[in-house]
Amino acid sequence: MPQYNSVTITDVQAAQERLLGIAHRTPVLTSRIVNDRTHSQVFFKCENFQRTGAFKFRGAYNALLQLSAAQKQKGVITYSSGNHAQAIALAGKLLNIPATIVMPDDAPAVKQTATRSYGAEVILYNRQETNREELTQNLARVGAASRRHRALTLIPPYDHPHVVAGQGTTALELIAEVGQLDLLLVCCGGGGLISGCAIATKALLPNCKVIGVEPELADDATRSFHSKTLQTVKNPDTIADGARTPSLGKITFPLVLHYVDDMVTVSEEAIIRTMFFLWERLKIVVEPTGALAAAALLEGVVKAPQTKIGVIISGGNVDLAQVGKLFS
Amino acid sequence: MPQYNSVTITDVQAAQERLLGIAHRTPVLTSRIVNDRTHSQVFFKCENFQRTGAFKFRGAYNALLQLSAAQKQKGVITYSSGNHAQAIALAGKLLNIPATIVMPDDAPAVKQTATRSYGAEVILYNRQETNREELTQNLARVGAASRRHRALTLIPPYDHPHVVAGQGTTALELIAEVGQLDLLLVCCGGGGLISGCAIATKALLPNCKVIGVEPELADDATRSFHSKTLQTVKNPDTIADGARTPSLGKITFPLVLHYVDDMVTVSEEAIIRTMFFLWERLKIVVEPTGALAAAALLEGVVKAPQTKIGVIISGGNVDLAQVGKLFS
Repeated sequence: MPQYNSVTITDVQAAQERLLGIAHRTPVLTSRIVNDRTHSQVFFKCENFQRTGAFKFRGAYNALLQLSAAQKQKGVITYSSGNHAQAIALAGKLLNIPATIVMPDDAPAVKQTATRSYGAEVILYNRQETNREELTQNLARVGAASRRHRALTLIPPYDHPHVVAGQGTTALELIAEVGQLDLLLVCCGGGGLISGCAIATKALLPNCKVIGVEPELADDATRSFHSKTLQTVKNPDTIADGARTPSLGKITFPLVLHYVDDMVTVSEEAIIRTMFFLWERLKIVVEPTGALAAAALLEGVVKAPQTKIGVIISGGNVDLAQVGKLFS
Repeated sequence: MPQYNSVTITDVQAAQERLLGIAHRTPVLTSRIVNDRTHSQVFFKCENFQRTGAFKFRGAYNALLQLSAAQKQKGVITYSSGNHAQAIALAGKLLNIPATIVMPDDAPAVKQTATRSYGAEVILYNRQETNREELTQNLARVGAASRRHRALTLIPPYDHPHVVAGQGTTALELIAEVGQLDLLLVCCGGGGLISGCAIATKALLPNCKVIGVEPELADDATRSFHSKTLQTVKNPDTIADGARTPSLGKITFPLVLHYVDDMVTVSEEAIIRTMFFLWERLKIVVEPTGALAAAALLEGVVKAPQTKIGVIISGGNVDLAQVGKLFS
């Protein structure tokens, strides 16, 4: 059973070296209206400006770069219909590593296209009939569907130490830019981003609190955190698609328990209001999951007046054609 | 008749001093996909991140700060349903100068609310029955509607040397950040932004070309530039509401003739495609007028491979509820 020392600050710092000049050093935005409203100084770390539009590129690249020469030659596989898919696809392209992505056959055409545009092979499956983790592991280990997929290395979306370390570079950069923080708010799906960021934050700023934010409708990590027993959620109907993951992972759960100070949830209405606010006032395109951390602050779920607060905007990949419906 | 020396680089530099710590030094974004597509190095100066969501705050604040004590006490007036209204309202609030804004009664409620939220008085008029310039001048000079409006100082949206100088600080900042440029693309409505930016650019980078971009449907400045005679357009039905101005001004026309190298136009479809591209790929909220300069480049109207190109994104104030319709 992995413990909380499966990933350390040294791993996160090593990841930062690997990502130098490859990942974007994303901008940190501030807003007077946010500061006035929260009576605090708020710094938004904008991973929606990251390559592929989300923080996921950090972990994917960090993981792929550390594969052996043989693994790189054979290629990698993962399951994702979201930002991890594009992240692995781009990292694979940059490192000349063949990438196979397992996606549900109802994934938006635009995401399939984006993933293929980076040169990845996309394998579709029926969400009702097939368990994606099993399918992927079969493809990777047994080569069930095609001999070509035999012995591919599986890079899961969050439950992997190199993925966690890569995501943690987000907080390293934020702290390097703004210095002291009293509080860091991070969204939580499978726990890769929050684990990595909490490790980095506690190492550099031991007094800075780290709070994770989930949708009310997908509150498995919050329940896991408070009960100290892994809880799950099944196909939650939240708009925050990045937080629809069934549970924290074997690696991320102990890290969250050890490094994170608290977990809170926000309503679907709060997520949408916050998205609207970020688009309208900060002029940035943020996806629902990307608005989770900001929602906890702007909706008053977390209050920390007279402090310096970091808020991670995790991504900006949305179907723009759907947004009008959401905001009208 | 004002000549092209009505505003000089010294005025723009003085405006920059006045705006220091008041206006945002807005970020400059780059995009690999844009560089790949255009075979050039492109730098987007993002005035959608400026206070009030557009470059207009620069000129408004620069103009208000230079009023006499008596003028400041009596207050200012302007006509605008758009970004200049909010810019004057905020500048007035910051400088404790009463601001009156004349707006058509069909201006979006959200813009009326935003302008009032900065403490400005909003006077509505009927667009069909009333000429706004005449109404405003009457209010300012004669006090026709209310004794309170007697002797207000009119700050027009573009045809004012202090407004032009303020807008020019946009280019000063861009050049300070990125250095040498071969080409600068700027949208053009009444010509305040492009005049100021062209003055600044030609002073600092004499070999850098400056090209203005208008909607095809509102091509008055392009026709004025090529014919060297002031041309007008009446209520053009372009989505780029910031470029619906009837013509260049007495001050801006000679400046455009002297400092600008060329003027081009883009179609409505090109504007919408470019907005969509900037939202989807750069993850920034850009209004139609704000996409004009980028459209000329991304749609191939202006081609400049193997060069360094500055593109000014002028603003990001849009009604988000309408966007879905536009993009779907």
